Amino acid sequence: MTDAERLAAEHACEKLMRQFANLNDARDFTGLAALFAEDARYARPTDPDRWVEGRAAIQAAFEGRPATKLTRHIVSNAVVTVDGPTEASGVSYVTLSAGPAVETGLVKADPALIGGFHDRYVKLDGRWLFKERKGSVVMTMAG
Amino acid sequence: MTDAERLAAEHACEKLMRQFANLNDARDFTGLAALFAEDARYARPTDPDRWVEGRAAIQAAFEGRPATKLTRHIVSNAVVTVDGPTEASGVSYVTLSAGPAVETGLVKADPALIGGFHDRYVKLDGRWLFKERKGSVVMTMAG
Amino acid sequence: MTDAERLAAEHACEKLMRQFANLNDARDFTGLAALFAEDARYARPTDPDRWVEGRAAIQAAFEGRPATKLTRHIVSNAVVTVDGPTEASGVSYVTLSAGPAVETGLVKADPALIGGFHDRYVKLDGRWLFKERKGSVVMTMAG
Repeated sequence: MTDAERLAAEHACEKLMRQFANLNDARDFTGLAALFAEDARYARPTDPDRWVEGRAAIQAAFEGRPATKLTRHIVSNAVVTVDGPTEASGVSYVTLSAGPAVETGLVKADPALIGGFHDRYVKLDGRWLFKERKGSVVMTMAG
Repeated sequence: MTDAERLAAEHACEKLMRQFANLNDARDFTGLAALFAEDARYARPTDPDRWVEGRAAIQAAFEGRPATKLTRHIVSNAVVTVDGPTEASGVSYVTLSAGPAVETGLVKADPALIGGFHDRYVKLDGRWLFKERKGSVVMTMAG
Repeated sequence: MTDAERLAAEHACEKLMRQFANLNDARDFTGLAALFAEDARYARPTDPDRWVEGRAAIQAAFEGRPATKLTRHIVSNAVVTVDGPTEASGVSYVTLSAGPAVETGLVKADPALIGGFHDRYVKLDGRWLFKERKGSVVMTMAG
Protein backbone atom coordinates (compact mmCIF):
# COMPACT_ATOMS: atom_id res chain seq x y z
CA MET A 1 0.00 0.00 0.00
CA THR A 2 1.13 3.53 -0.67
CA ASP A 3 1.20 6.16 2.06
CA ALA A 4 -1.74 7.85 0.35
CA GLU A 5 -3.77 4.63 0.44
CA ARG A 6 -3.00 4.18 4.14
CA LEU A 7 -4.04 7.74 4.91
CA ALA A 8 -7.29 7.31 2.97
CA ALA A 9 -8.01 4.07 4.85
CA GLU A 10 -7.37 5.68 8.23
CA HIS A 11 -9.56 8.65 7.45
CA ALA A 12 -12.37 6.43 6.17
CA CYS A 13 -12.37 4.30 9.32
CA GLU A 14 -12.21 7.38 11.58
CA LYS A 15 -15.21 8.80 9.73
CA LEU A 16 -17.06 5.49 10.09
CA MET A 17 -16.86 5.79 13.89
CA ARG A 18 -18.31 9.29 13.81
CA GLN A 19 -21.04 8.30 11.35
CA PHE A 20 -22.02 5.42 13.63
CA ALA A 21 -22.50 7.82 16.55
CA ASN A 22 -24.39 10.44 14.56
CA LEU A 23 -26.75 7.92 12.97
CA ASN A 24 -27.33 6.28 16.35
CA ASP A 25 -28.26 9.65 17.89
CA ALA A 26 -30.53 10.38 14.93
CA ARG A 27 -32.11 6.91 15.35
CA ASP A 28 -31.36 6.20 11.68
CA PHE A 29 -30.71 2.52 12.21
CA THR A 30 -30.93 1.61 8.54
CA GLY A 31 -28.07 4.03 7.90
CA LEU A 32 -26.21 2.73 10.94
CA ALA A 33 -26.55 -0.90 9.85
CA ALA A 34 -25.22 0.00 6.41
CA LEU A 35 -21.89 0.87 8.05
CA PHE A 36 -21.44 -2.81 8.93
CA ALA A 37 -20.36 -5.67 6.68
CA GLU A 38 -23.11 -8.27 6.08
CA ASP A 39 -21.36 -10.73 8.41
CA ALA A 40 -20.17 -8.20 11.01
CA ARG A 41 -20.68 -8.58 14.73
CA TYR A 42 -21.38 -5.97 17.37
CA ALA A 43 -21.27 -5.95 21.17
CA ARG A 44 -22.82 -2.88 22.77
CA PRO A 45 -20.84 -1.01 25.45
CA THR A 46 -23.24 -1.91 28.24
CA ASP A 47 -23.24 -5.62 27.30
CA PRO A 48 -19.76 -6.21 25.89
CA ASP A 49 -19.74 -10.00 26.18
CA ARG A 50 -22.80 -10.63 24.07
CA TRP A 51 -22.18 -10.53 20.33
CA VAL A 52 -24.96 -9.60 17.96
CA GLU A 53 -24.13 -11.41 14.72
CA GLY A 54 -24.89 -10.08 11.25
CA ARG A 55 -26.00 -6.74 9.86
CA ALA A 56 -29.72 -7.53 10.01
CA ALA A 57 -29.54 -8.60 13.65
CA ILE A 58 -27.51 -5.50 14.53
CA GLN A 59 -30.16 -3.29 12.95
CA ALA A 60 -32.94 -5.16 14.76
CA ALA A 61 -31.12 -4.81 18.09
CA PHE A 62 -30.92 -1.03 17.68
CA GLU A 63 -34.53 -0.76 16.51
CA GLY A 64 -35.68 -2.75 19.52
CA ARG A 65 -34.52 -0.13 21.98
CA PRO A 66 -37.19 2.27 23.25
CA ALA A 67 -36.93 5.86 21.98
CA THR A 68 -37.27 7.30 25.47
CA LYS A 69 -33.85 8.98 25.55
CA LEU A 70 -32.28 11.72 23.52
CA THR A 71 -28.59 10.79 23.17
CA ARG A 72 -25.35 12.38 22.13
CA HIS A 73 -22.49 9.95 21.62
CA ILE A 74 -19.34 12.05 21.48
CA VAL A 75 -16.52 10.26 19.66
CA SER A 76 -12.87 11.06 20.32
CA ASN A 77 -9.33 9.66 20.40
CA ALA A 78 -9.74 7.55 17.27
CA VAL A 79 -6.54 5.72 16.34
CA VAL A 80 -6.67 3.42 13.32
CA THR A 81 -4.04 0.89 12.30
CA VAL A 82 -4.10 -0.30 8.70
CA ASP A 83 -3.29 -4.00 8.67
CA GLY A 84 -3.48 -4.50 4.91
CA PRO A 85 -5.23 -3.29 1.76
CA THR A 86 -8.64 -4.47 3.02
CA GLU A 87 -8.11 -4.83 6.77
CA ALA A 88 -7.73 -2.35 9.59
CA SER A 89 -8.35 -2.10 13.30
CA GLY A 90 -8.99 0.83 15.59
CA VAL A 91 -9.94 2.21 18.96
CA SER A 92 -11.88 5.25 20.11
CA TYR A 93 -13.46 6.77 23.17
CA VAL A 94 -17.13 7.62 23.43
CA THR A 95 -18.74 9.95 25.97
CA LEU A 96 -22.48 9.40 26.18
CA SER A 97 -24.85 12.07 27.41
CA ALA A 98 -28.49 11.01 27.49
CA GLY A 99 -31.65 12.57 28.85
CA PRO A 100 -35.41 12.27 28.52
CA ALA A 101 -36.54 12.58 24.89
CA VAL A 102 -38.90 15.48 25.37
CA GLU A 103 -40.37 17.26 22.40
CA THR A 104 -39.45 20.83 23.21
CA GLY A 105 -36.90 22.66 25.29
CA LEU A 106 -33.43 21.85 26.47
CA VAL A 107 -32.92 18.28 27.64
CA LYS A 108 -31.19 17.79 31.02
CA ALA A 109 -28.78 14.89 30.60
CA ASP A 110 -27.95 12.28 33.21
CA PRO A 111 -24.32 12.07 34.33
CA ALA A 112 -22.30 11.14 31.24
CA LEU A 113 -20.74 7.73 30.68
CA ILE A 114 -17.26 7.36 29.23
CA GLY A 115 -16.40 4.20 27.34
CA GLY A 116 -15.21 3.25 23.92
CA PHE A 117 -14.91 0.75 21.12
CA HIS A 118 -12.38 -1.71 19.79
CA ASP A 119 -13.07 -2.21 16.09
CA ARG A 120 -12.02 -4.25 13.12
CA TYR A 121 -12.72 -2.88 9.65
CA VAL A 122 -12.91 -4.48 6.22
CA LYS A 123 -12.83 -2.91 2.76
CA LEU A 124 -15.53 -4.33 0.49
CA ASP A 125 -16.30 -3.02 -3.01
CA GLY A 126 -14.09 -0.03 -2.37
CA ARG A 127 -15.73 0.98 0.90
CA TRP A 128 -14.54 0.56 4.50
CA LEU A 129 -17.08 -1.04 6.83
CA PHE A 130 -17.19 -2.33 10.40
CA LYS A 131 -16.28 -6.02 10.59
CA GLU A 132 -16.40 -6.11 14.37
CA ARG A 133 -17.27 -3.50 17.02
CA LYS A 134 -16.86 -4.25 20.72
CA GLY A 135 -17.90 -1.62 23.21
CA SER A 136 -17.03 -0.95 26.80
CA VAL A 137 -18.01 1.49 29.56
CA VAL A 138 -15.36 2.49 32.10
CA MET A 139 -16.41 5.62 33.95
CA THR A 140 -19.25 7.94 34.90
CA MET A 141 -18.58 11.65 34.93
CA ALA A 142 -19.38 13.74 37.98
CA GLY A 143 -22.95 15.04 37.93
CA MET B 1 -12.89 14.64 -8.38
CA THR B 2 -10.24 12.11 -7.43
CA ASP B 3 -10.35 10.27 -4.13
CA ALA B 4 -7.35 12.34 -3.02
CA GLU B 5 -9.18 15.58 -3.79
CA ARG B 6 -12.22 14.40 -1.82
CA LEU B 7 -10.07 13.45 1.16
CA ALA B 8 -8.31 16.82 1.09
CA ALA B 9 -11.67 18.60 0.95
CA GLU B 10 -13.07 16.61 3.88
CA HIS B 11 -9.99 17.24 5.99
CA ALA B 12 -10.00 20.96 5.18
CA CYS B 13 -13.65 21.34 6.21
CA GLU B 14 -13.13 19.29 9.39
CA LYS B 15 -10.22 21.56 10.28
CA LEU B 16 -12.33 24.64 9.57
CA MET B 17 -14.80 23.57 12.29
CA ARG B 18 -12.01 23.18 14.83
CA GLN B 19 -10.40 26.48 13.85
CA PHE B 20 -13.73 28.24 14.31
CA ALA B 21 -13.99 26.92 17.87
CA ASN B 22 -10.40 27.70 18.81
CA LEU B 23 -10.51 31.23 17.41
CA ASN B 24 -13.86 31.84 19.13
CA ASP B 25 -12.40 30.74 22.48
CA ALA B 26 -9.35 32.93 21.87
CA ARG B 27 -11.67 35.84 21.00
CA ASP B 28 -9.78 36.24 17.70
CA PHE B 29 -12.84 37.34 15.77
CA THR B 30 -10.87 38.69 12.81
CA GLY B 31 -9.39 35.23 12.38
CA LEU B 32 -12.80 33.64 12.90
CA ALA B 33 -14.46 35.87 10.31
CA ALA B 34 -11.76 34.99 7.79
CA LEU B 35 -13.02 31.39 7.86
CA PHE B 36 -16.27 32.58 6.24
CA ALA B 37 -16.92 33.46 2.62
CA GLU B 38 -17.69 37.14 2.05
CA ASP B 39 -21.38 36.35 1.49
CA ALA B 40 -21.70 33.62 4.13
CA ARG B 41 -24.42 33.51 6.74
CA TYR B 42 -24.31 32.34 10.34
CA ALA B 43 -26.92 31.47 12.96
CA ARG B 44 -25.59 31.01 16.47
CA PRO B 45 -26.59 27.91 18.43
CA THR B 46 -28.61 29.85 20.99
CA ASP B 47 -30.49 31.81 18.30
CA PRO B 48 -30.70 29.37 15.38
CA ASP B 49 -33.52 31.07 13.49
CA ARG B 50 -31.81 34.43 13.11
CA TRP B 51 -29.29 34.58 10.27
CA VAL B 52 -26.41 37.01 10.44
CA GLU B 53 -25.61 37.79 6.79
CA GLY B 54 -22.12 38.51 5.46
CA ARG B 55 -18.62 38.16 6.85
CA ALA B 56 -18.44 41.68 8.26
CA ALA B 57 -21.74 41.32 10.11
CA ILE B 58 -20.66 37.94 11.48
CA GLN B 59 -17.46 39.47 12.83
CA ALA B 60 -19.39 42.38 14.35
CA ALA B 61 -21.85 40.00 16.02
CA PHE B 62 -19.02 38.14 17.72
CA GLU B 63 -17.23 41.31 18.71
CA GLY B 64 -20.41 42.65 20.24
CA ARG B 65 -20.56 39.93 22.87
CA PRO B 66 -19.20 40.83 26.29
CA ALA B 67 -15.92 39.15 27.27
CA THR B 68 -17.27 38.06 30.63
CA LYS B 69 -16.92 34.35 30.03
CA LEU B 70 -13.98 32.06 29.39
CA THR B 71 -15.19 29.44 26.93
CA ARG B 72 -14.09 26.09 25.56
CA HIS B 73 -16.04 24.90 22.55
CA ILE B 74 -15.19 21.23 22.14
CA VAL B 75 -15.80 20.02 18.59
CA SER B 76 -16.51 16.38 17.78
CA ASN B 77 -18.30 13.99 15.41
CA ALA B 78 -17.48 15.97 12.29
CA VAL B 79 -18.82 14.29 9.15
CA VAL B 80 -18.27 16.09 5.85
CA THR B 81 -19.90 15.22 2.53
CA VAL B 82 -18.21 16.55 -0.59
CA ASP B 83 -20.91 17.62 -3.01
CA GLY B 84 -18.62 18.79 -5.82
CA PRO B 85 -15.21 20.33 -6.54
CA THR B 86 -16.13 23.54 -4.72
CA GLU B 87 -19.11 22.53 -2.57
CA ALA B 88 -19.42 20.47 0.58
CA SER B 89 -21.69 20.13 3.59
CA GLY B 90 -21.11 18.83 7.08
CA VAL B 91 -22.29 18.34 10.63
CA SER B 92 -20.56 18.33 13.99
CA TYR B 93 -21.30 18.35 17.69
CA VAL B 94 -20.08 21.06 20.04
CA THR B 95 -19.88 20.82 23.83
CA LEU B 96 -19.57 24.25 25.41
CA SER B 97 -18.06 24.77 28.84
CA ALA B 98 -18.04 28.37 30.01
CA GLY B 99 -17.20 30.07 33.27
CA PRO B 100 -16.37 33.53 34.63
CA ALA B 101 -13.39 35.06 32.81
CA VAL B 102 -11.18 35.61 35.81
CA GLU B 103 -7.57 36.59 35.38
CA THR B 104 -5.89 33.95 37.49
CA GLY B 105 -6.66 30.49 38.75
CA LEU B 106 -8.80 27.66 37.53
CA VAL B 107 -12.17 28.69 36.14
CA LYS B 108 -15.22 26.78 37.42
CA ALA B 109 -17.46 26.17 34.43
CA ASP B 110 -21.25 26.17 34.43
CA PRO B 111 -22.96 22.93 33.39
CA ALA B 112 -21.92 22.26 29.80
CA LEU B 113 -24.23 22.64 26.81
CA ILE B 114 -24.23 20.12 23.98
CA GLY B 115 -25.28 21.26 20.54
CA GLY B 116 -23.84 21.37 17.09
CA PHE B 117 -23.69 22.85 13.64
CA HIS B 118 -25.02 22.13 10.19
CA ASP B 119 -22.67 23.69 7.67
CA ARG B 120 -22.24 24.34 3.98
CA TYR B 121 -18.73 24.99 2.65
CA VAL B 122 -17.42 26.58 -0.51
CA LYS B 123 -13.96 26.46 -2.11
CA LEU B 124 -12.77 29.89 -3.19
CA ASP B 125 -9.29 30.64 -4.54
CA GLY B 126 -8.15 27.18 -3.48
CA ARG B 127 -9.37 27.48 0.10
CA TRP B 128 -12.40 25.93 1.80
CA LEU B 129 -14.58 28.39 3.73
CA PHE B 130 -17.89 28.40 5.55
CA LYS B 131 -20.76 29.34 3.24
CA GLU B 132 -23.42 28.73 5.87
CA ARG B 133 -23.26 27.71 9.54
CA LYS B 134 -26.43 26.98 11.51
CA GLY B 135 -26.11 26.13 15.17
CA SER B 136 -28.33 24.34 17.64
CA VAL B 137 -28.35 23.48 21.35
CA VAL B 138 -29.98 20.23 22.43
CA MET B 139 -28.88 19.29 25.92
CA THR B 140 -27.31 20.42 29.17
CA MET B 141 -24.92 18.08 30.90
CA ALA B 142 -25.40 17.15 34.54
CA GLY B 143 -23.72 19.59 36.90
CA MET C 1 5.84 20.41 -0.16
CA THR C 2 2.85 19.16 -2.12
CA ASP C 3 -0.69 19.45 -0.80
CA ALA C 4 -0.69 15.68 -0.27
CA GLU C 5 2.47 15.88 1.82
CA ARG C 6 0.96 18.64 3.95
CA LEU C 7 -2.22 16.66 4.49
CA ALA C 8 -0.24 13.56 5.48
CA ALA C 9 1.82 15.63 7.93
CA GLU C 10 -1.27 17.17 9.51
CA HIS C 11 -2.97 13.83 9.89
CA ALA C 12 0.14 12.24 11.38
CA CYS C 13 0.50 14.98 13.99
CA GLU C 14 -3.22 14.87 14.83
CA LYS C 15 -2.91 11.12 15.34
CA LEU C 16 0.15 11.61 17.53
CA MET C 17 -1.91 13.69 19.98
CA ARG C 18 -4.56 10.98 20.23
CA GLN C 19 -1.96 8.22 20.60
CA PHE C 20 -0.33 10.16 23.44
CA ALA C 21 -3.64 10.30 25.32
CA ASN C 22 -4.55 6.67 24.71
CA LEU C 23 -1.12 5.37 25.74
CA ASN C 24 -1.17 7.60 28.81
CA ASP C 25 -4.56 6.21 29.86
CA ALA C 26 -3.30 2.66 29.24
CA ARG C 27 -0.19 3.44 31.30
CA ASP C 28 1.96 2.30 28.36
CA PHE C 29 4.74 4.78 29.02
CA THR C 30 7.28 3.05 26.79
CA GLY C 31 4.87 3.51 23.91
CA LEU C 32 4.15 7.07 25.00
CA ALA C 33 7.84 7.97 25.20
CA ALA C 34 8.38 6.57 21.70
CA LEU C 35 6.14 9.35 20.38
CA PHE C 36 8.79 11.91 21.41
CA ALA C 37 12.06 12.75 19.67
CA GLU C 38 15.15 11.78 21.67
CA ASP C 39 15.79 15.44 22.57
CA ALA C 40 12.16 16.46 23.04
CA ARG C 41 10.87 18.34 26.05
CA TYR C 42 7.57 18.07 27.86
CA ALA C 43 5.75 20.20 30.43
CA ARG C 44 2.70 18.59 31.98
CA PRO C 45 -0.57 20.52 32.10
CA THR C 46 -0.57 20.83 35.88
CA ASP C 47 3.05 22.06 35.97
CA PRO C 48 3.45 23.97 32.70
CA ASP C 49 6.55 25.95 33.65
CA ARG C 50 8.76 22.97 34.43
CA TRP C 51 10.27 21.30 31.35
CA VAL C 52 11.18 17.64 31.47
CA GLU C 53 14.04 17.31 29.00
CA GLY C 54 14.70 14.25 26.85
CA ARG C 55 12.72 11.13 25.98
CA ALA C 56 14.15 9.03 28.81
CA ALA C 57 13.34 11.65 31.44
CA ILE C 58 9.83 12.06 30.03
CA GLN C 59 9.24 8.32 30.31
CA ALA C 60 10.62 8.28 33.86
CA ALA C 61 8.36 11.18 34.86
CA PHE C 62 5.28 9.30 33.70
CA GLU C 63 6.38 6.06 35.30
CA GLY C 64 6.95 7.85 38.59
CA ARG C 65 3.31 8.75 38.97
CA PRO C 66 1.23 6.47 41.21
CA ALA C 67 -1.31 4.27 39.45
CA THR C 68 -4.10 5.26 41.80
CA LYS C 69 -6.30 6.88 39.18
CA LEU C 70 -8.07 5.55 36.13
CA THR C 71 -7.92 8.32 33.53
CA ARG C 72 -9.52 9.24 30.24
CA HIS C 73 -7.81 12.09 28.40
CA ILE C 74 -10.24 13.18 25.71
CA VAL C 75 -8.49 14.98 22.87
CA SER C 76 -10.27 17.48 20.63
CA ASN C 77 -9.90 20.63 18.51
CA ALA C 78 -6.54 19.62 17.05
CA VAL C 79 -5.24 22.18 14.57
CA VAL C 80 -1.84 21.52 13.01
CA THR C 81 0.23 23.97 10.99
CA VAL C 82 2.92 22.52 8.76
CA ASP C 83 5.93 24.80 8.93
CA GLY C 84 8.16 22.85 6.53
CA PRO C 85 8.97 19.34 5.32
CA THR C 86 10.14 18.24 8.78
CA GLU C 87 8.60 20.84 11.10
CA ALA C 88 5.07 21.47 12.30
CA SER C 89 3.26 22.97 15.25
CA GLY C 90 -0.16 22.40 16.71
CA VAL C 91 -2.70 22.95 19.43
CA SER C 92 -5.41 20.79 20.95
CA TYR C 93 -7.81 20.68 23.87
CA VAL C 94 -7.84 17.88 26.43
CA THR C 95 -10.66 17.06 28.83
CA LEU C 96 -9.46 14.86 31.67
CA SER C 97 -11.81 12.64 33.64
CA ALA C 98 -10.14 10.67 36.42
CA GLY C 99 -11.41 8.50 39.23
CA PRO C 100 -10.17 5.88 41.67
CA ALA C 101 -8.52 2.95 39.86
CA VAL C 102 -10.71 0.20 41.24
CA GLU C 103 -10.55 -3.28 39.82
CA THR C 104 -14.18 -3.89 39.04
CA GLY C 105 -17.27 -1.83 38.38
CA LEU C 106 -17.88 1.59 36.97
CA VAL C 107 -15.46 4.27 38.13
CA LYS C 108 -16.98 7.54 39.38
CA ALA C 109 -14.85 10.35 38.01
CA ASP C 110 -14.00 13.58 39.77
CA PRO C 111 -15.15 16.80 38.07
CA ALA C 112 -13.35 16.94 34.72
CA LEU C 113 -10.51 19.33 33.93
CA ILE C 114 -10.28 21.11 30.59
CA GLY C 115 -6.89 22.14 29.32
CA GLY C 116 -4.74 21.55 26.29
CA PHE C 117 -1.37 21.40 24.65
CA HIS C 118 0.82 23.56 22.49
CA ASP C 119 3.11 21.30 20.48
CA ARG C 120 6.01 21.36 18.10
CA TYR C 121 6.59 18.32 15.90
CA VAL C 122 9.59 17.06 13.95
CA LYS C 123 9.84 14.47 11.18
CA LEU C 124 12.70 12.04 11.75
CA ASP C 125 13.38 8.96 9.61
CA GLY C 126 10.03 9.43 7.91
CA ARG C 127 8.01 9.61 11.13
CA TRP C 128 6.44 12.60 12.87
CA LEU C 129 7.29 12.91 16.58
CA PHE C 130 6.76 15.39 19.38
CA LYS C 131 9.63 17.87 19.64
CA GLU C 132 7.99 19.92 22.37
CA ARG C 133 4.71 19.53 24.28
CA LYS C 134 3.55 22.20 26.72
CA GLY C 135 0.36 21.60 28.65
CA SER C 136 -2.09 23.87 30.41
CA VAL C 137 -5.25 23.56 32.51
CA VAL C 138 -7.88 26.29 32.24
CA MET C 139 -11.17 25.10 33.63
CA THR C 140 -12.99 22.57 35.78
CA MET C 141 -16.33 21.28 34.62
CA ALA C 142 -19.37 21.38 36.87
CA GLY C 143 -19.67 18.28 39.06
